Amino acid sequence: MSNIERYGSGPRWSDVVVHNGVAKWVEVAADPELDIAGQIGQVFEQIDQTLSQLQSRREQVLEVMIFLADLGDAKVLNAQWDKWVVPGHAPIRACVGAALSGGLKIEVVVTAAVDR
Amino acid sequence: MSNIERYGSGPRWSDVVVHNGVAKWVEVAADPELDIAGQIGQVFEQIDQTLSQLQSRREQVLEVMIFLADLGDAKVLNAQWDKWVVPGHAPIRACVGAALSGGLKIEVVVTAAVDR
Amino acid sequence: MSNIERYGSGPRWSDVVVHNGVAKWVEVAADPELDIAGQIGQVFEQIDQTLSQLQSRREQVLEVMIFLADLGDAKVLNAQWDKWVVPGHAPIRACVGAALSGGLKIEVVVTAAVDR
Repeated sequence: MSNIERYGSGPRWSDVVVHNGVAKWVEVAADPELDIAGQIGQVFEQIDQTLSQLQSRREQVLEVMIFLADLGDAKVLNAQWDKWVVPGHAPIRACVGAALSGGLKIEVVVTAAVDR
Repeated sequence: MSNIERYGSGPRWSDVVVHNGVAKWVEVAADPELDIAGQIGQVFEQIDQTLSQLQSRREQVLEVMIFLADLGDAKVLNAQWDKWVVPGHAPIRACVGAALSGGLKIEVVVTAAVDR
Repeated sequence: MSNIERYGSGPRWSDVVVHNGVAKWVEVAADPELDIAGQIGQVFEQIDQTLSQLQSRREQVLEVMIFLADLGDAKVLNAQWDKWVVPGHAPIRACVGAALSGGLKIEVVVTAAVDR
């Protein structure tokens, strides 16, 4: 068990779990009252902050699983996504529509490699 | 291929697959006629049984991806979840609403570390 | 970072990412105008092609996460799935209904072991 690292471990979930050189976390906008563009922007900022905290970076993101409350928001997502992704180092990406709680418009599961 | 272990391997799926020190499995209530509280309780019992079978434990659960047929059931889920999680060892958790088959109200993908 | 391999890396996503002996990718039908049986058949063909490209094979598939635009298509899926799976080497499988973009009827996230 010594090889499991948990960051931001609260009573209900951990913010990030690292195991065997792989970090996984779930990102949602800190402010769910923002509109879709705002939530997406915040999610990307938070992903960058988490990568920095992990001493990882965008080039090491392996997979992004995206849930949108309204799949019609994919265009807004893609506009911001395309600026965020590092050419030549894009992760795999799934993107589907699903019901999200508490006003959230986007919920993202991120997987990134970390050097540990 | 020698490093892939499959448990409960049927014609359609395996109950659990272990690879590189990580076990993954999909848990649904054995009895889909139970109400939501019953199905959730059964899912947690079954997760505990699987962890025991794998010689793993709640403290080694890394990630839980939850699909609820009715996201309004999240409150019932959380009441049981909060008793199940081991403080300081919570996994990451995503929870979204999605259509589930055969009367199922909850479907969960579990990832846990195993010592192999 | 030298241990991350990306295949088919475009500006928006990579087709496949390999890390730590595990390959992951998202498969959708190349032709989203096909009916459900056609899309499913194409997805399985494409998975086989990707496995071949990775020098992996069906016996090394660890996990399949399936999103169906219409969960009522699960019967059609299962008929093809049962022919595709190698007895004794079935992956774990989750299958839920979710909104999919661009006429897609099925979107699949595949995880397979690779010898690297």
